[in-house]
Amino acid sequence: MGEGRGLLYVAGQISREGDRLLTGRCPDEVSVEEASRRARLCAISVLSQIQAAAGLENVERLMQVMGWVRSADDFGEQPKVINGASDLFVDVLGDAGKHTRAALGTNALPFSVTVELAAVAIVRTG
Amino acid sequence: MGEGRGLLYVAGQISREGDRLLTGRCPDEVSVEEASRRARLCAISVLSQIQAAAGLENVERLMQVMGWVRSADDFGEQPKVINGASDLFVDVLGDAGKHTRAALGTNALPFSVTVELAAVAIVRTG
Amino acid sequence: MGEGRGLLYVAGQISREGDRLLTGRCPDEVSVEEASRRARLCAISVLSQIQAAAGLENVERLMQVMGWVRSADDFGEQPKVINGASDLFVDVLGDAGKHTRAALGTNALPFSVTVELAAVAIVRTG
Repeated sequence: MGEGRGLLYVAGQISREGDRLLTGRCPDEVSVEEASRRARLCAISVLSQIQAAAGLENVERLMQVMGWVRSADDFGEQPKVINGASDLFVDVLGDAGKHTRAALGTNALPFSVTVELAAVAIVRTG
Repeated sequence: MGEGRGLLYVAGQISREGDRLLTGRCPDEVSVEEASRRARLCAISVLSQIQAAAGLENVERLMQVMGWVRSADDFGEQPKVINGASDLFVDVLGDAGKHTRAALGTNALPFSVTVELAAVAIVRTG
Repeated sequence: MGEGRGLLYVAGQISREGDRLLTGRCPDEVSVEEASRRARLCAISVLSQIQAAAGLENVERLMQVMGWVRSADDFGEQPKVINGASDLFVDVLGDAGKHTRAALGTNALPFSVTVELAAVAIVRTG
């Protein structure tokens, strides 16, 4: 890693709007478009966590994003949903926001939310 | 990271008690309380792995914990279940045991166990 | 980490053969043996990504592999499936290919593929 840099792990951020949890399964209860908007809201939470812990200006590189979409068994458009998050990371952080990603489905998430996002970034700590 | 420190990745630890696998889905086959106890047993396995690989006294910081709970489709209390693990990490390691976390649900886990836990720690290697 | 070394995160690689996605759930739609072969194909994709990003000869250690198998609710042989990937990593990289691993099940994956694999490696960057 080298001196003056550190790994910042961001805890799982679940889809919410203010205090309201955004729940439901994709696509039978929540559309792909709405799920993608919820992924974007999770990304805003990730960015808020990074801002609070290290400052967005100190992000050297967003390394890894893992995104889970609460999915019906035959749903396979998780990448399209998680794009709602990925696009925001690049919009806000530029090249430093480019990341490797795993888009995943699952039958169940905390409080039955639609999306959960976890991330790892390299930040300047100097 | 700096010299004298390294990342220790701990493999997925599944819920077991001695040689007996602790299986079943939450909450219809296994209660939240029992699942939380199983998460704690997974945490003990994580700590054993760290002890064997680096020594618990050399943990500078437990960075990330990912916990999966085998869940019915409408179950959303994964955070309460995984608290059984998180609380133990802080009890045993103190401030070094504080960690970012993603609590997740899934329909299926190896050998149909109730909980699986993976972790990443920064350890002193000097 | 020390100078001259870096973490390489490899994005989620889904089961495919050339341009054809390898879809279906284990074990009712896809056998354990076939799923294991698909996990091996994912591992080849991971190695290709590492080769392109850093060169396989610069892998100091494959640290972590996470493997998801699209699973029926009562399927628990994910470790056997993911062995198809783990064995290849050691065959190709030798000691540097040994890794900690989490084998996981899920009800849904992108494009309904059978296996998805993500990895983290330490590579020489000097």
